[in-house]
Amino acid sequence: MEKNIALLPGDGIGPEVMKEAVKVLDAAAKKFKFKINYKKADVGGCAIDNHGTALPDSTLEVCEKSDAILFGSVGGPKWESLPPAEQPERAALLPLRKHFALYCNLRPARVFKSLAAASPLKPEIVKDGFDILCVRELTGGIYFGEPKGREGEGSQEKAYDTLVYSRFEIDRIARKAFEAARIRRGIVTSVDKANVLFSMVLWREVVMEVAKEYPDVTLNHIYVDNATMQLVKDPHQFDVLLCGNMFGDIISDECAMITGSMGLLASASLNEDNFGLYEPAGGTAPDIAGKGIANPIAQILSAAMMLKYSLDQVEAADAIVQAVSSVLDRGIYTADLTGDAASAVGTAEMGDAIAALL
Amino acid sequence: MEKNIALLPGDGIGPEVMKEAVKVLDAAAKKFKFKINYKKADVGGCAIDNHGTALPDSTLEVCEKSDAILFGSVGGPKWESLPPAEQPERAALLPLRKHFALYCNLRPARVFKSLAAASPLKPEIVKDGFDILCVRELTGGIYFGEPKGREGEGSQEKAYDTLVYSRFEIDRIARKAFEAARIRRGIVTSVDKANVLFSMVLWREVVMEVAKEYPDVTLNHIYVDNATMQLVKDPHQFDVLLCGNMFGDIISDECAMITGSMGLLASASLNEDNFGLYEPAGGTAPDIAGKGIANPIAQILSAAMMLKYSLDQVEAADAIVQAVSSVLDRGIYTADLTGDAASAVGTAEMGDAIAALL
Ligand SMILES: CC(C)[C@H](C(=O)O)[C@@H](O)C(=O)O
Ligand SMILES: CC(C)[C@H](C(=O)O)[C@@H](O)C(=O)O
Repeated sequence: MEKNIALLPGDGIGPEVMKEAVKVLDAAAKKFKFKINYKKADVGGCAIDNHGTALPDSTLEVCEKSDAILFGSVGGPKWESLPPAEQPERAALLPLRKHFALYCNLRPARVFKSLAAASPLKPEIVKDGFDILCVRELTGGIYFGEPKGREGEGSQEKAYDTLVYSRFEIDRIARKAFEAARIRRGIVTSVDKANVLFSMVLWREVVMEVAKEYPDVTLNHIYVDNATMQLVKDPHQFDVLLCGNMFGDIISDECAMITGSMGLLASASLNEDNFGLYEPAGGTAPDIAGKGIANPIAQILSAAMMLKYSLDQVEAADAIVQAVSSVLDRGIYTADLTGDAASAVGTAEMGDAIAALL
Repeated sequence: MEKNIALLPGDGIGPEVMKEAVKVLDAAAKKFKFKINYKKADVGGCAIDNHGTALPDSTLEVCEKSDAILFGSVGGPKWESLPPAEQPERAALLPLRKHFALYCNLRPARVFKSLAAASPLKPEIVKDGFDILCVRELTGGIYFGEPKGREGEGSQEKAYDTLVYSRFEIDRIARKAFEAARIRRGIVTSVDKANVLFSMVLWREVVMEVAKEYPDVTLNHIYVDNATMQLVKDPHQFDVLLCGNMFGDIISDECAMITGSMGLLASASLNEDNFGLYEPAGGTAPDIAGKGIANPIAQILSAAMMLKYSLDQVEAADAIVQAVSSVLDRGIYTADLTGDAASAVGTAEMGDAIAALL
């Protein structure tokens, strides 16, 4: 097998952690006998600086010619004064999602046993750990709904957005959630606001219909406001959380934070053909960029998700996850994971340790 | 002063805790020399049972003839099989808010020092306590925006809602937040999603304009997804959180839960004339209804908010808050507040203890 990967390291710690992901991918390629060709391209803040736009056509072209996109992270203080809608993250990610129809966002959030103490939640609450998969619809809902705009004048001036979902859109993302639950703990919790929103009434209806085809999976419904409460009270109750675009944005971030280990969380955004964009959950961490101390694990696990979902290298993907687990079990930690900075390893050492176990 | 109050106890523990609120109000009335006339009316599940609707016209009429509404809580297993949009809570609260134009929802969420251990967050995070006031817009946004509906057929069938805000609506709720911050710690954090939503771009614009009139107050902006994370990571950073209707629904519930003491949290929903509906943050707790062990403090503090905001009895309101604090400081706890059930007091005893201190 020979595959082409678009590498979009982005800003801040992006390039540093990307280097380690490539190191680990290369080790996996050697071991499992496949070949990856990398093509690097600018995205985010550095693309604004070099090309005047967060997502240059040349970058899109590189992505189009690839089998998957490995994305770092984008943004930083340098571009913070741009209007919100032109911020690097937003201006890079939203068009990429739309262009490649990446409707299915998978964001696993789990507490690694040895790291449960890092969670902001009390030890009693995380003692049994938790392992949640957020399945977020990513190309519909209020992010992309039409019409949206502004009209009127003076104090009567109005601005509006449309939250719209079709049966088709809900059906296909619901299936992804049920498929995932089937090979996990068998519970889908659908997050909605069906007591207030028309779109969410349809959401619930369609999810219930899809559920009929998965009698082996338990379906629960939860209102989004209650979901934010239950997540801090008892995250253990959840297996797969199924959400629309905006609720998924909110809920998946809360899930990530309560693990206490944002530096370990990967995500995948897939289209119908399993083409995907893979990125860490965390940001560019400008305060530590260039210091060689950032945690590369989220980027490395994003690469593992890429092997699994887009490149059909499930064995290699599992081996990487296994290697990461072993390294953590041995107490090899980057600074973000340990209170004891003196014993922490750097970005490259962490990459080496993981690659060495392959 | 003589005032008329509509008492809407509702379902579950509603009637029990309402009784204690009336007890405390009567004690305060005696001490501070004013008179309250109460008029009781059905709302929620019991109203569905007795009148076929969660908000009967007769109840609305009682409210219209009153100076404020003291609301208990509504809903329970008996009505759970109703469609989401007909659930007692939704079918009572939304029309009440709209009918009386209660656009300003105030939800204080604070960790009481002696009860910090009840928070689901780690002791290190809550050690300095926190004290957040959520100011939520309550009669606009996607809850009430037009058009909303359903159209099309088969897999192309769509359902939609409109998130719309006018300058006028944003301006008036923003002012409430800045006024509140002025007599608190002087920080307003406005929660939006201005990087994606048109309505939230206008939201941010108007909030920034209003801020110019409050140079003594610091204004920060936070994206709603990040807000859910920061709340569990470091709630101490927030003073006043200013939110639209839907984000406020989500964020204020998360705020309530991280205090760990939902049984202590009150809320006020006000209109332009300071007519208001006052209710506890928690629900009907059907599992303990009728047992005489429910915590009446949230209902009592809701009554105190009513005295302050709608009845102009600030002194009496402060005295009630003070009495509640003293009772808690003395270690007088209902079952929800203590691990040691044997030492817990009942609903009526708690009401007595608070009334006795007035
Ligand atoms: C940058 C922003 C547009 C984006 C979103 O809201 O989807 C981000 O928060 C995310 O969750 O990937
Ligand atoms: C019952 C429901 C409609 C309501 C809301 O979403 O506003 C409730 O959750 C609240 O926050 O008061």
